[in-house]
Amino acid sequence: MQRFSVSLESSLLDRFDTHLDQHGYGNRSEAVRDLIRDALVDEAWQAGKEVTGVITYVYDHHQRQLQDRVTEVQHHHHDIVVATTHVHLDHDHCLEVAIVKGQAEQVRVLADQLKALRGVQSARLAVAGTGRVSS
Amino acid sequence: MQRFSVSLESSLLDRFDTHLDQHGYGNRSEAVRDLIRDALVDEAWQAGKEVTGVITYVYDHHQRQLQDRVTEVQHHHHDIVVATTHVHLDHDHCLEVAIVKGQAEQVRVLADQLKALRGVQSARLAVAGTGRVSS
Amino acid sequence: MQRFSVSLESSLLDRFDTHLDQHGYGNRSEAVRDLIRDALVDEAWQAGKEVTGVITYVYDHHQRQLQDRVTEVQHHHHDIVVATTHVHLDHDHCLEVAIVKGQAEQVRVLADQLKALRGVQSARLAVAGTGRVSS
Amino acid sequence: MQRFSVSLESSLLDRFDTHLDQHGYGNRSEAVRDLIRDALVDEAWQAGKEVTGVITYVYDHHQRQLQDRVTEVQHHHHDIVVATTHVHLDHDHCLEVAIVKGQAEQVRVLADQLKALRGVQSARLAVAGTGRVSS
Repeated sequence: MQRFSVSLESSLLDRFDTHLDQHGYGNRSEAVRDLIRDALVDEAWQAGKEVTGVITYVYDHHQRQLQDRVTEVQHHHHDIVVATTHVHLDHDHCLEVAIVKGQAEQVRVLADQLKALRGVQSARLAVAGTGRVSS
Repeated sequence: MQRFSVSLESSLLDRFDTHLDQHGYGNRSEAVRDLIRDALVDEAWQAGKEVTGVITYVYDHHQRQLQDRVTEVQHHHHDIVVATTHVHLDHDHCLEVAIVKGQAEQVRVLADQLKALRGVQSARLAVAGTGRVSS
Repeated sequence: MQRFSVSLESSLLDRFDTHLDQHGYGNRSEAVRDLIRDALVDEAWQAGKEVTGVITYVYDHHQRQLQDRVTEVQHHHHDIVVATTHVHLDHDHCLEVAIVKGQAEQVRVLADQLKALRGVQSARLAVAGTGRVSS
Repeated sequence: MQRFSVSLESSLLDRFDTHLDQHGYGNRSEAVRDLIRDALVDEAWQAGKEVTGVITYVYDHHQRQLQDRVTEVQHHHHDIVVATTHVHLDHDHCLEVAIVKGQAEQVRVLADQLKALRGVQSARLAVAGTGRVSS
């Protein structure tokens, strides 16, 4: 562990402390670390580096052969799909989550391909970590 | 099913068609439906309506009692957590996905509480559907 | 001015320092202050508080009476429009910027109304500050 | 002008129509054109193509020599800065808007450089159009 100090105006510090309370942070260091990590994740994504994240998609399982096509797309990208989870939202709809780890561009292509399938109603990508998560 | 027609300049249509090719869409209707659904999901989120989505977080499982605290936070919100999936990213880190369905504000609070835990290194929220996914 | 100290893993600090270099920051304090301010602006926006920002829109000035309608919408919201700037992008298109200061909801409504005008081809909103910018 | 038709479920169309009412759209075509243009702008930005947009920054004009440094940074990028507008927010603070047109990467670098200046408290970038706005 290392330390560095941050200087800032009293009024900004007050507002930051209110923000920490509202979001349940116990101390400033943890909150600043989260801000730093978020900035690094955004940058890794924009720079096309390796990222870890999740593609979430909702689909109508009555759509003919859709489940087969979803599986096929995933197998085509099997090297970046770590795991998938499936839940039944209602009589017609499933939500599936694919946990992915790969180059930003590969991840984007996979998300695009899932989204473009007829019957896939929504697909969103959340990048949660840089490929190197060890800090 | 219903139909409506869209009029637009030729040059905009050409660029849209190129966009469809690049993103793997087979036809314009599917792409327009996706754009409409995305806009509705964003609006449901901003308006605080019921949403379906996923909270993704990365944490260090060596952090003392962190796993217990993560579970505790989730149980406190058990009514909106549909399922969780856990993967081992490397020797030290786990990525967990919580599939959630609830009012936008509840979902935001849960994501905040997970993010604020010491040892949780990143938490991202992706809203994938409105509560009502039947179209 | 006040100070507080942040503790973090060496590897995270290294990556943060690389990030600072790439983005031209001279020291860590300035970068952390920016991260904090950005988080506060996002929160003010989501919480519907007073914000300062900019609505940018591109339109075709050949569209009949569009300029009148743009002006009319702005005058209807004159209490939140601080200033506008207009540039000529090419033979057909103008880009206009409206600097706004008001409640998040008012700002959103104005942006929506401009965007919905026929001939306005794009409208984007950037929130740059909380209403209270004094820190 | 060209036309194409979109088929979609009645329930999705109903929700889209409600959305149009809420956002002040007079007809579906205009709303779909806006969704298409937004998607193309996002893509141009991600693909690093030429974009048109606005960088908004708030700064403390009492900060020694800041105004000179802001001007210097802008002049270094004079080929992409089309115009700037300056407003006085309160006793201490200015908000300035730089309208920019250039490659996505150049625009990002300029926004970064402005943001990293000590005394610049917030800088946000809004991309409002692709370089080619003629549709």
